[in-house]
Amino acid sequence: MYLSPNDPKYQTRPHVVILGGGFVGISAAKQLQHAPVDITLIDRRNHHLFQPLLYQVATAGLSAPDIAQPLRHIFANQSNVTTLMDEVTSIDLTARKVTMKEHTVSFDYLILGLGAQTGFFGNNHWEQHTLGLKTLNEATDIRRSFLTAFEMAEVESDPVLREKLLTFVVVGGGPTGVEMAGAMAELAGRVLTKDFRRIDPSSAKIHLVEAGPRLLPMFSEKQSEYTQRRLEKMGVIVHLHTPVTHIEEGKVIGSKLELQTDSIVWAAGVEANRVSRHMGEIPLDRGGRIQVEKDLRVPNFPNVFAAGDIVSLVDVKGVKVPGVAPSAMQMGRHAARQIIRDLEQKETEPFVYFDKGNMATIGRSSAVAAFAGLRFNGFSAWFAWLAVHLIFLMGMRNRVMVFLNWTWSYLSWHRGARIITGQGYIRTPRNSEVKASQNTACQTLPDT
Amino acid sequence: MYLSPNDPKYQTRPHVVILGGGFVGISAAKQLQHAPVDITLIDRRNHHLFQPLLYQVATAGLSAPDIAQPLRHIFANQSNVTTLMDEVTSIDLTARKVTMKEHTVSFDYLILGLGAQTGFFGNNHWEQHTLGLKTLNEATDIRRSFLTAFEMAEVESDPVLREKLLTFVVVGGGPTGVEMAGAMAELAGRVLTKDFRRIDPSSAKIHLVEAGPRLLPMFSEKQSEYTQRRLEKMGVIVHLHTPVTHIEEGKVIGSKLELQTDSIVWAAGVEANRVSRHMGEIPLDRGGRIQVEKDLRVPNFPNVFAAGDIVSLVDVKGVKVPGVAPSAMQMGRHAARQIIRDLEQKETEPFVYFDKGNMATIGRSSAVAAFAGLRFNGFSAWFAWLAVHLIFLMGMRNRVMVFLNWTWSYLSWHRGARIITGQGYIRTPRNSEVKASQNTACQTLPDT
Repeated sequence: MYLSPNDPKYQTRPHVVILGGGFVGISAAKQLQHAPVDITLIDRRNHHLFQPLLYQVATAGLSAPDIAQPLRHIFANQSNVTTLMDEVTSIDLTARKVTMKEHTVSFDYLILGLGAQTGFFGNNHWEQHTLGLKTLNEATDIRRSFLTAFEMAEVESDPVLREKLLTFVVVGGGPTGVEMAGAMAELAGRVLTKDFRRIDPSSAKIHLVEAGPRLLPMFSEKQSEYTQRRLEKMGVIVHLHTPVTHIEEGKVIGSKLELQTDSIVWAAGVEANRVSRHMGEIPLDRGGRIQVEKDLRVPNFPNVFAAGDIVSLVDVKGVKVPGVAPSAMQMGRHAARQIIRDLEQKETEPFVYFDKGNMATIGRSSAVAAFAGLRFNGFSAWFAWLAVHLIFLMGMRNRVMVFLNWTWSYLSWHRGARIITGQGYIRTPRNSEVKASQNTACQTLPDT
Repeated sequence: MYLSPNDPKYQTRPHVVILGGGFVGISAAKQLQHAPVDITLIDRRNHHLFQPLLYQVATAGLSAPDIAQPLRHIFANQSNVTTLMDEVTSIDLTARKVTMKEHTVSFDYLILGLGAQTGFFGNNHWEQHTLGLKTLNEATDIRRSFLTAFEMAEVESDPVLREKLLTFVVVGGGPTGVEMAGAMAELAGRVLTKDFRRIDPSSAKIHLVEAGPRLLPMFSEKQSEYTQRRLEKMGVIVHLHTPVTHIEEGKVIGSKLELQTDSIVWAAGVEANRVSRHMGEIPLDRGGRIQVEKDLRVPNFPNVFAAGDIVSLVDVKGVKVPGVAPSAMQMGRHAARQIIRDLEQKETEPFVYFDKGNMATIGRSSAVAAFAGLRFNGFSAWFAWLAVHLIFLMGMRNRVMVFLNWTWSYLSWHRGARIITGQGYIRTPRNSEVKASQNTACQTLPDT
């Protein structure tokens, strides 16, 4: 038992448990800094991950530590926060208890910020053949897979196999897919070119496969067209109206499409963290997202709030809240404020999403941005993207390191993290969670 | 077959195969830049690793990419070098053939620079209970193991288990052991202190266990005493005259010593890369090191040279050549020069080791150094250590990043890479090579 009810600390002040150290958890805990509560922040990792830059770790532009910050360090000086590293397995909302792999915690208030995970629209067996992009481990898996493919192609004498090795498929034309495809195209087309003797890395084929009629649907049609033009100029082969119908080892099949490849990045969809399906009788949408009340409470559980990618909400102004970082931060703060109001016997307030606009980077000096009616593309958008991401990145050291890496990459056309780590030179196109569990299955780990 | 004899390229110029992309391989290949030869540089990794700073990756001070440089990138502009990523399994010196996991290469000249691996003096079963420090994977394994121990201790209610979690043992009082113990003591005693709520990280016990009568035997007795005093001041518990006699899961036993711990870093010994034992009839010492001729040739194989940690040599001046980076670079260049002389029908020359002195860092502002009779300790030695390592680190970007990380750590007492990656939060005190092979054993990998 982690927090026993006998622990005097928890007889004096209400105990707020926050699940997830993402944008929701961080902003909620900070909002509660001066509240008369004791907070336990729980994440299965020891760090807050700045997801928006994850694709740059996957494409060797940044090192993993550059975009991560230890949760304990973030809250070192906020004395009402206790950090716990463990993995949530189930939540009993009625008994007010969170069960994890190694501990159990009871709560007075709960904030669910467990976010999303890669989703396959019911084709979960595709997971083992594709690479997701949600964790640092998955990012370094993609980096290893991508760099290793070029190493193997360099020494592959069979032209058919060589072509297969140099074929990369990104499924999903949203921001993540666009950013991945663009960064991969730059790596293959510009960064690696001089380093190989037998192959021409720029002959690699980067396919971006999107089911819908255009890329970046959250932007204007003009901007979608701009994005596609830029990507095609960079050598990316864009397939629109092409839903993927089948994925097997080494092969992707879609309508009008069949590609032989060992490198499939899945950026086509996310669903809520699976835990949402193990919380008893609460309303979920098809993606497992919790359909919360307007004030972010979980129906029938007035002391439980959910925020971020794990919820599905149309706010009081009728706006469908998107699953982006700014909305997660806003919801996290809102949930925290409602707990304070509740403690003050005040009515809770409905959440109103403030749209800060959208940004997506395509490649060097090119991005699309949309703020409050204003729409701009190209260098200005790209520069704004860099600035905004530096500002929201956590930790001054990380900001400096990322800024310098970007400057250096921009000037030299090099990438600072072109190393193959993990499984040595063996490529394993599986996401890390799967690998980890397989390890657990076939190793006898000393302390699990 | 990787290089077919029909390949016209290899009928015109002699083919020099260099095994290992460490200090030997890099300096040998560069020495041959203008020689009329074709070079194939083979390493199982895609990067050159700057081993002297590996302990800082293990202790969260640096990111893995900061001390690694892609081999292809290093030789992008040296057209007579071809890089191949593969793992050597055996070498047939008579048939002039190198067999790897996926390829076979034939050579006219061979330079063996495969270096050393962690050695257990015949107790190879200790390997599974200890953490080595030879590769980036091992370094991040140590980082994960170390940081996870504190996470688990924070929530461990049993005081006995908590003490076990907070007990760390470094075996071996050479430079690596001293640097690891010092960096661990700083991390526990200064960096983590404010971040935990239940435990006091500075109460962690860091044991440094050395079989011999003093630390850093290659330095003067005065400097050994200084080193021990400094370490003890930092909280390290130093055990001299204490050979380790037994290691099992969670326990280290030595003369006058029994420690309960899950974190055992093995820095007590190295032996030559195992490949040296699969090369047929060549003279080896007990550590598997090749007893080369004075000119670095392998006895009876005039076209085969060995250099670096894989050789055992007393040079013509009677100096036993130590297994350090400078000697590896010198030997690598010497071997390359002998190949050039051989091509010019000149006699080969004996290798003469030029002793550049010794340096070891203990902790913040304290190190020991010895150059040409000159011996100095403390800040001056520490500063010299920083400068020398920055100069020899490969790649301007890496130098800048490392310099900034050091400056930042010095000013803030923080560490920039305090993230737990790899097996998630599950600690696996095994070295990565073992893990990798276990994975291969129990996963069906798509392309191995």
